[in-house]
Amino acid sequence: MTDTYRPIIWKDEKLFLLDQRLLPQSEVFVEINNLKSCADAITQMIVRGAPCIGFSAIFGMALWMKSQAKVTVESCRSACDEMISARPTAVNLSFEVNRCFELMKSEIVEGNSTNHIYQKLVSFGEAQIQASQEKNTSMAQIACEELTSRVGNKKWRLMTHCNTGFLACGSIGTALGVISHAHKLGKIEHVIADETRPYLQGSRLTAFELSKENIPFSIVVEGAASYILSQNKVDAIFVGADRIAANGDTANKVGTATLAIVAKYYNIPFYVVAPLSSFDVSIPNGKHIEIEMRPMEEITELKGIKLAPANANSINPSFDVTDHQLITGIICEKGFINPKNAGELIKVVNL
Amino acid sequence: MTDTYRPIIWKDEKLFLLDQRLLPQSEVFVEINNLKSCADAITQMIVRGAPCIGFSAIFGMALWMKSQAKVTVESCRSACDEMISARPTAVNLSFEVNRCFELMKSEIVEGNSTNHIYQKLVSFGEAQIQASQEKNTSMAQIACEELTSRVGNKKWRLMTHCNTGFLACGSIGTALGVISHAHKLGKIEHVIADETRPYLQGSRLTAFELSKENIPFSIVVEGAASYILSQNKVDAIFVGADRIAANGDTANKVGTATLAIVAKYYNIPFYVVAPLSSFDVSIPNGKHIEIEMRPMEEITELKGIKLAPANANSINPSFDVTDHQLITGIICEKGFINPKNAGELIKVVNL
Repeated sequence: MTDTYRPIIWKDEKLFLLDQRLLPQSEVFVEINNLKSCADAITQMIVRGAPCIGFSAIFGMALWMKSQAKVTVESCRSACDEMISARPTAVNLSFEVNRCFELMKSEIVEGNSTNHIYQKLVSFGEAQIQASQEKNTSMAQIACEELTSRVGNKKWRLMTHCNTGFLACGSIGTALGVISHAHKLGKIEHVIADETRPYLQGSRLTAFELSKENIPFSIVVEGAASYILSQNKVDAIFVGADRIAANGDTANKVGTATLAIVAKYYNIPFYVVAPLSSFDVSIPNGKHIEIEMRPMEEITELKGIKLAPANANSINPSFDVTDHQLITGIICEKGFINPKNAGELIKVVNL
Repeated sequence: MTDTYRPIIWKDEKLFLLDQRLLPQSEVFVEINNLKSCADAITQMIVRGAPCIGFSAIFGMALWMKSQAKVTVESCRSACDEMISARPTAVNLSFEVNRCFELMKSEIVEGNSTNHIYQKLVSFGEAQIQASQEKNTSMAQIACEELTSRVGNKKWRLMTHCNTGFLACGSIGTALGVISHAHKLGKIEHVIADETRPYLQGSRLTAFELSKENIPFSIVVEGAASYILSQNKVDAIFVGADRIAANGDTANKVGTATLAIVAKYYNIPFYVVAPLSSFDVSIPNGKHIEIEMRPMEEITELKGIKLAPANANSINPSFDVTDHQLITGIICEKGFINPKNAGELIKVVNL
């Protein structure tokens, strides 16, 4: 399909999932043979990232279908529900599994064999990954055009936050997809990845992705943003998004808004790269986005080591909201949006 | 002397330094017997914080003097230079060691014995700690007056970065001295301490100090600065300084400038609290401050656990420079300085 590193591999009628819990030290693929082992892999976070969870579940449903001599709509529903219960709050999981169910149902009505339905499910899974790859590649192309016109035709020094590459997306990724695509074009001089506390997605996952693609990079602590950006060594910053409001205000991993404010202070272009599925034009602005608060121990402990006194409290927001005025451009599969132009986002979404 | 916790103890002609690398889990004092072990303790950050480094170095020079049968101005200079090279960016270190050198020189001219000079150096060290306690208390009083006039007479919600309390200062501290003093006056509602990567001075040390004094606090990751300051729950931010240029540009622990930029964006007052010994009016502005780069492993490893892929590089500046335009006020023992008023700093320093 592409030469992108693949954390989800379908091969010889089996599913192989990169065990992301062991990264970045060990690169181990887990063989998945049936529905139960797939659901377990999702529950245990062997596989993570909304798109990756969805893709894995489709192949898990295919493996279930292969194991059945005969199926009914009811047995399909029950198998789908078992898969969905692996991570009940993951919207992407139920979304993809319910699409599998609709596919199974219409195949059953047509009287097709389980082997035929199995093949259909495998093709559906592969097509989903392929579609994601194409969408992300087209976003990356738009971003590279923007960079060429703004920064020029020299090699680029880019910075990113959190993890948005193949580990999260299964395909080349969103913000990291831009970097990966630009690297294939020979356009990357150096990448700065911030470590992204408290979960260290930058140093654990983004650094792994950059290593795998042989892209030159350095990790920095988030406090170093001012130092790094004051040195005139970063041409542009690319981040992903969890939710984008109608005015362009963007919720993303905590630290994004802090970085955007520092970028604005030093006049470094700041881009958000996200598929339309992350847009929520039903909310007018970021004030309507609820911020998930996560356990205090994510800050005060690391892999069982206590980093703070035993009685220490912490405040641990998982996301923050970046004001659209701080964002140079939002790039989705339909094009480039300047969120400072009121209404431009809605116009592009409705294209 | 005071009821302040003491991380530097001179006892039985030996120096005992609290090993701050082991905090907050273990409270272990390291015995220092000579110049080399003192310089090593500074390099390895067993002792840290500009004033503590300065005090330790004085006692380290005393230990060196004690070990010498005879000294010359040249041998003193060379010993002083060895000590200063332990941490090149720390102006406080060279300041105190050069004062030791002046003391040694005049004692040599008077023909006094090394034992006599040794006693003089010990007394000098003890007097410095006492003077620091008095100086810091007076800075804290000035800061509390400023807060009362700006924020009002309600209880204050303050934020701080890195570690500036008794662990850093030997006395009540600079920025944390303000918090500690305000707490004694019953004026503190809550304190936000950021964790201060990569060395976690906030979660390890400041949290330890705040716990010891029963001050209510929460730890946040530095990326959360935008989230926290956007919530209107912080009245003012207090930080220390490693070096202040003539125009008020301030070098301090990496992350300070990042926080100051975010504070400016949200209009939160941002104060630097530092004794005159941190002022270097020989340099016109922050561009002349050399930034110490520290080992990459401080970012990519934590207590032996690898946080990033084996081949990952990092960029690890120890300090950053906060532009004076971002600073609401600099508080030293001679008074309050508004660095936006050109020349005000020099005027106060020369009072």
